[in-house]
Amino acid sequence: MENYLLLIDCPDEKGLVHKITGILYRYELNVIRNDEFVEKEINHFFMRTEFTGNINELLILNELYAILPKNASVKFVKKHKKNVVILVTKEHHCLGELLLRHQFNELNVNILAVIGNYDILADLTQKFGIPYHHISHENKSREDHELEVLRKIQDYNPEFLVLAKYMRVLTPAFVNYFPNRIINIHHSFLPAFIGANPYRQAYERGVKIIGATAHFVSNHLDEGPIISQSVIPVDHTQNANDMTQAGRDVEKIVLARSLKLVFDDCVFVCGNKTIIFD
Amino acid sequence: MENYLLLIDCPDEKGLVHKITGILYRYELNVIRNDEFVEKEINHFFMRTEFTGNINELLILNELYAILPKNASVKFVKKHKKNVVILVTKEHHCLGELLLRHQFNELNVNILAVIGNYDILADLTQKFGIPYHHISHENKSREDHELEVLRKIQDYNPEFLVLAKYMRVLTPAFVNYFPNRIINIHHSFLPAFIGANPYRQAYERGVKIIGATAHFVSNHLDEGPIISQSVIPVDHTQNANDMTQAGRDVEKIVLARSLKLVFDDCVFVCGNKTIIFD
Amino acid sequence: MENYLLLIDCPDEKGLVHKITGILYRYELNVIRNDEFVEKEINHFFMRTEFTGNINELLILNELYAILPKNASVKFVKKHKKNVVILVTKEHHCLGELLLRHQFNELNVNILAVIGNYDILADLTQKFGIPYHHISHENKSREDHELEVLRKIQDYNPEFLVLAKYMRVLTPAFVNYFPNRIINIHHSFLPAFIGANPYRQAYERGVKIIGATAHFVSNHLDEGPIISQSVIPVDHTQNANDMTQAGRDVEKIVLARSLKLVFDDCVFVCGNKTIIFD
Amino acid sequence: MENYLLLIDCPDEKGLVHKITGILYRYELNVIRNDEFVEKEINHFFMRTEFTGNINELLILNELYAILPKNASVKFVKKHKKNVVILVTKEHHCLGELLLRHQFNELNVNILAVIGNYDILADLTQKFGIPYHHISHENKSREDHELEVLRKIQDYNPEFLVLAKYMRVLTPAFVNYFPNRIINIHHSFLPAFIGANPYRQAYERGVKIIGATAHFVSNHLDEGPIISQSVIPVDHTQNANDMTQAGRDVEKIVLARSLKLVFDDCVFVCGNKTIIFD
Repeated sequence: MENYLLLIDCPDEKGLVHKITGILYRYELNVIRNDEFVEKEINHFFMRTEFTGNINELLILNELYAILPKNASVKFVKKHKKNVVILVTKEHHCLGELLLRHQFNELNVNILAVIGNYDILADLTQKFGIPYHHISHENKSREDHELEVLRKIQDYNPEFLVLAKYMRVLTPAFVNYFPNRIINIHHSFLPAFIGANPYRQAYERGVKIIGATAHFVSNHLDEGPIISQSVIPVDHTQNANDMTQAGRDVEKIVLARSLKLVFDDCVFVCGNKTIIFD
Repeated sequence: MENYLLLIDCPDEKGLVHKITGILYRYELNVIRNDEFVEKEINHFFMRTEFTGNINELLILNELYAILPKNASVKFVKKHKKNVVILVTKEHHCLGELLLRHQFNELNVNILAVIGNYDILADLTQKFGIPYHHISHENKSREDHELEVLRKIQDYNPEFLVLAKYMRVLTPAFVNYFPNRIINIHHSFLPAFIGANPYRQAYERGVKIIGATAHFVSNHLDEGPIISQSVIPVDHTQNANDMTQAGRDVEKIVLARSLKLVFDDCVFVCGNKTIIFD
Repeated sequence: MENYLLLIDCPDEKGLVHKITGILYRYELNVIRNDEFVEKEINHFFMRTEFTGNINELLILNELYAILPKNASVKFVKKHKKNVVILVTKEHHCLGELLLRHQFNELNVNILAVIGNYDILADLTQKFGIPYHHISHENKSREDHELEVLRKIQDYNPEFLVLAKYMRVLTPAFVNYFPNRIINIHHSFLPAFIGANPYRQAYERGVKIIGATAHFVSNHLDEGPIISQSVIPVDHTQNANDMTQAGRDVEKIVLARSLKLVFDDCVFVCGNKTIIFD
Repeated sequence: MENYLLLIDCPDEKGLVHKITGILYRYELNVIRNDEFVEKEINHFFMRTEFTGNINELLILNELYAILPKNASVKFVKKHKKNVVILVTKEHHCLGELLLRHQFNELNVNILAVIGNYDILADLTQKFGIPYHHISHENKSREDHELEVLRKIQDYNPEFLVLAKYMRVLTPAFVNYFPNRIINIHHSFLPAFIGANPYRQAYERGVKIIGATAHFVSNHLDEGPIISQSVIPVDHTQNANDMTQAGRDVEKIVLARSLKLVFDDCVFVCGNKTIIFD
């Protein structure tokens, strides 16, 4: 018996749960967990159903399309490890966290490769038997460098890109290759401190709490749908550098937790927000 | 159109969601929110459905019993303020919190009366126009005092009792009058520091975090189903008295939040645990 | 034996702690607690010393000025309840919290009066025996209304003003009457969501955590020195209104905790930041 | 100019800070940070001073002993990486965290070796160039196994032992070789759930928050001085296994944070508690 997910989102109308579960019932599928949510502001229905059984995917899909409103999005997902490529710059803490979780099967992921614009993290990556590609940005235009990175990524055909402290801004053209498939960790409690040096900004402002935000990358810098956020208290004894260090623990845990949610197919993107069934 | 809740728990079997939602669909009820959960260790199904519509409650109940497994528990609840009596001793912070929330309709509650074994909190209670009954325990056996309290409570016929820092242990006979209808706030992060003086115990042990626990009262002291818990950090500069003061903020917020969950019918009791749809 | 505080801030130089504690030692004062901090970015020294004893304040102050760098700020404070006036608009939760803590001596405060631009909170205030002044802003210029409020405040000569959800922006002229003596609770995790409707903004942005910030009021809206911040998690099931309700618990606790710090003289203002010895 | 720490604890008496800082002032040492605390229940004084300068350690120590009460404990510490041996069993997450932090100099530590009673973690350890010793406990008495482990540890002469999920109980004789020098991570919010399978216990009890505790090891199981604790919320959807997974993130962060405090000499042990200057 296989383990499946059914992911549906469509305009809301009466009786959707009854109709959808009716089809699963007739095929004698065993529902393990079922979550629904209606976003009332836009009257849109989201449903995530975990079940086991032996199915002819096409048969069921056709039945579902027949009863669902037009423009419904329906996905059958067989549970599997998600293929990803990770992009990094110089900082090791998020990459190290992901390599460890990958090695010990704590994350539903298959890390295909790591690409860095410096070679600093090559050694760490290779310890874990993962290919590392150093694509320097020096003496190249942004577009030329990005194209080189894109070509390398395409060699691996990943389902997701993870920006594990990749400190270069991606162009809209690049982002559009991977709609809602790039996940970034931002080192602030967004929308506070958008842009460069957020810990320096936090220190200057004298805040008493700092945080980190994992989000999908959209074309607007630091403005894509937020997946998860977390915070820690700070005080006047900590300078910008101390905050940077303290923030690392939060960043890596928030990124890892967000990836778990995404790779377990718990996250729907709804405009600029996320619906998360956890 | 009325606002209703349907609360079902029963042994799990295939097709329950489909069958239940089918009945709601045929009556053209408008489901606003639907939550289900199956506790696998005991294979038991829980469902909470919010809907609007005009219903003949008996008709629908009969249809539901016809399709549900034997021993199903089914409740229709029209949304309403829960009638409660509050028991107190000397401390004001939880009572004050509840009186304010009651006054400003922040809690789905109707406070009928407050009963205290001291008269210290009479003045505070009466400021808010609520009757206060002082039933001293002095020179009385535990059973005599408790019977007097019970008689006074029965005059009000409340749906729930709230122990807002009521510092007397209730006997099993008393508790059995109100099964899963007495909510207590315990001033520790249960199951740590069961019994008397938990902040003193916490100080002696040198813990770095203290907490509070709201739970239903069962016959075993401090062992009923937990509804909510919360914590705050402490350090070596705080003595037992400082911890007591710091703990008050946590206690009153945890109690208020738990009562909100219970009075909004979001809480199922499942053996010694709670299932909470929040 | 009286209970005193000595509060010093001055440019840093070697030997300050030794010299200051030497004077206290010669007068045989009993130091209960001592905190120091040097803000290295501006090379400035802060010290807070709690002690008991019988002192001639002027004698000691003269000795301190003799050994301290020029421009040192030195304050002797006999422990006392701080006289405050509270400003409100319509929301009750922060006011109710402060009235309860005042009533039960949980805060080192003496509430002289409450002033509101609506009369909604008069009843609550008067329950606790505190005068309430309704000064409507309707049909008045901002300046005229503010002057009327100022005159009423001056009748009471308070040490601090507390803005307990006072929803009107104060002019720089008004603020300058009370430098670092006005404390505001802002309903967001500053600097995120400056300005109006922060919960609406938080909802629109799809954040996963919301917060509240207590700060001194400076001439720049929502930009004064932050005293304390706190947060709670939210998710996609909560709309802007739900977030507003959830935020209230955080707001009132953060405000109360910040006032405790300020009224216990634990807070130094240092430019746009606070140094807090808690 | 060297970077030093002065760590003093002794019975409290008037003028200690003045006298101690006087000696530092005469030697023209530059105090960077100074923390003091008096534990009033036992009238004991603790002081930690960071300073830079060129010192004759013996000269200053003699001057300090001359002015301090009898039985004072005084330590000069030149800032250095602490030599440690790590003990493990099967779980990788705490070890992986420490190896990464060691590799990237995020912790003031020099990991000399890892000893495990299984060989599962040999590969991970060796990736980072650290020796791994597999000392199986099979077919050996507790004492024989422990002696073998002790001998191996003694080969390295470490300043601290870290139990990174070492799942065997240590005998008092072993513990006494390393008084207040063994740090353990316990997978519960002590003192709740002492002993085996705390996550199972937490699940059975239906708690809404779980945690982890890092502490020095004393002769009483899970009862040594607590260094740090942290928690995360859980709910009814998580079984014991889910809680175990969720707890790992907390365990490794709490352990790493506690080791940072200990290795930076911020922690005094005071009976069964810790005084922490962070």
